[in-house]
Amino acid sequence: MALPETAAMTECLRDLGEAELIRRLSRFAPPGQFDDDTAAVQGGNDTLLINTDLLVEGVHFSDTTTSPQDVGWRAAAANLSDLAASGVTEPVGLTVGLVAPAHTPWRWVEGVYEGLSAALRRHGGFLLGGDCTGGQQRMLAITALGHCGPLRLHRNQAQAGDWLVVSGPHGLSRLGLALLRGEVDLRHHSVDRHLHAAAILQHQRPQPRFAALRDLLACKPLDLPWRAAGTDSSDGLLRSVQDLCHSSGCSAELDPTTLPLAPGWPQELNRESWCLNGGEDFELALSLPPEWAKPWIAQAPGRQRIGRITTNANAGIHWSDGRGSVSAGGEFQHFQA
Amino acid sequence: MALPETAAMTECLRDLGEAELIRRLSRFAPPGQFDDDTAAVQGGNDTLLINTDLLVEGVHFSDTTTSPQDVGWRAAAANLSDLAASGVTEPVGLTVGLVAPAHTPWRWVEGVYEGLSAALRRHGGFLLGGDCTGGQQRMLAITALGHCGPLRLHRNQAQAGDWLVVSGPHGLSRLGLALLRGEVDLRHHSVDRHLHAAAILQHQRPQPRFAALRDLLACKPLDLPWRAAGTDSSDGLLRSVQDLCHSSGCSAELDPTTLPLAPGWPQELNRESWCLNGGEDFELALSLPPEWAKPWIAQAPGRQRIGRITTNANAGIHWSDGRGSVSAGGEFQHFQA
Repeated sequence: MALPETAAMTECLRDLGEAELIRRLSRFAPPGQFDDDTAAVQGGNDTLLINTDLLVEGVHFSDTTTSPQDVGWRAAAANLSDLAASGVTEPVGLTVGLVAPAHTPWRWVEGVYEGLSAALRRHGGFLLGGDCTGGQQRMLAITALGHCGPLRLHRNQAQAGDWLVVSGPHGLSRLGLALLRGEVDLRHHSVDRHLHAAAILQHQRPQPRFAALRDLLACKPLDLPWRAAGTDSSDGLLRSVQDLCHSSGCSAELDPTTLPLAPGWPQELNRESWCLNGGEDFELALSLPPEWAKPWIAQAPGRQRIGRITTNANAGIHWSDGRGSVSAGGEFQHFQA
Repeated sequence: MALPETAAMTECLRDLGEAELIRRLSRFAPPGQFDDDTAAVQGGNDTLLINTDLLVEGVHFSDTTTSPQDVGWRAAAANLSDLAASGVTEPVGLTVGLVAPAHTPWRWVEGVYEGLSAALRRHGGFLLGGDCTGGQQRMLAITALGHCGPLRLHRNQAQAGDWLVVSGPHGLSRLGLALLRGEVDLRHHSVDRHLHAAAILQHQRPQPRFAALRDLLACKPLDLPWRAAGTDSSDGLLRSVQDLCHSSGCSAELDPTTLPLAPGWPQELNRESWCLNGGEDFELALSLPPEWAKPWIAQAPGRQRIGRITTNANAGIHWSDGRGSVSAGGEFQHFQA
């Protein structure tokens, strides 16, 4: 006897969306854990943080814009960025799960591992083994692990009065992708040589911000507690601010006059949308007391204040000039395909 | 100008095969590391072992024989089994990377996580977060982590004179799969009720052998050093013995009169091939001095001697009755699809 199909029985991932999927899955993990980019593991007297990321061909990378070396570098950098944004000062390394069809050229696989290795040589840590298997689509599953410093950064630690600060400019990776795809008409937009190179580099070889984290630890005023909120901006700057606000139960205000754009960004070139929603910027997005934020910003170029936490109640993100709420628009969705 | 294509340029994963692929990738990791099921991570005064496994739909599981709860359980159990076979006494937990098409029912995803959680409740450890994304094919990437006890089991520690021992019978999982698929004609093979249930349970709910490891640690004769070789038999019993011999540079002899089959196994039902090459048995396969092996075998039913390491030179695996070399036959290949 066939049972009648109910909506609940046929509900699929496309219907749920990512946020709801994560909410539902969170009941399988210890409380609060799905809220952060990493989970903590106690190893003797040491805290290790661990993080898993998936990269699927056609969703996260494509042969047309990304060399295998860049696929490997970006996979490692994306995971290491989550570690840095959670407080890891010393990466231990990563494991690699590689799925690929039988017809995949060895040269591609070799290139991916070359890129992974190059990122580890640059930022620390080793390849900690992994697994390879056949499948219809190329896919990388990376799990990175590192030693946590004195400050574990959580998303839920923002407080009213905090400054929102970032470790570098945003939108560069999206601009780099657009330049590689030929989407930017260079006759109408003057992208100077430095910006052009920086954008492509940021897209192909993003850097996890361990140096920015180390500076943050070094410049904390003695009279302040180890309280700061943080995440990385891999899913877009606005999304990272939304995540901080959502987890902390706060509202924020962004300053339209201090959009963190790279020097030389053309006035008319998707300034706001690519800066806020371009994605894959891999900068630190932090919420911390102004007395701590100021010395950190002063220590290196590119770091800046982008706004502030206004109230300890989640009422969204607004522009500080009274224009109203900051719109998301064009966010990356994983389950639309 | 097109360059001429050379064989090296077009070589693909199908041409290489798994062993050669692993050999080539091993240059990217610290020496010796690709040789074991797990990698070691130092956490303060504690050693953690880490392991990543991939499960791809159509390769490692199928909707027709495996419920989502069983997919989850088996994914967790397979990784925890690698930890147990490497010396982990206390699992910390695992991260889960889930790839699934947008049309995947939420019920399936929920079932997988229920199975994962059930295995963790049974054997210890927590879900340590993870990642979810869209893709053409369902896939799970599991990374498990645990605290290593006083003995880190490597594959390369076997020595001539050692006994080869296993923690339980082999071929059960393959029999379970055959029964589920209706491949065994029960009019011609008398599979009793106990064997039937045990085979299906072993296929759907395999158990990592932490208890067998704990017994091994507890029963070491005081005058022996902490030297033993080990792996699990997830890729088949013969493959596990081959791995031990290959890594240790040893030869082995298997005793055809002590094939580790489950009680009641029908005389004519693929005895040798499913016992040796059925795969997915998840038992410990160990090489250790007879004085250590004997008390371990005596402690629990199912454990037994299957042969011995003959010489410290890799000349393959032979039958002890002079029949010649033990043939592999029907081994699982990941890159044939």
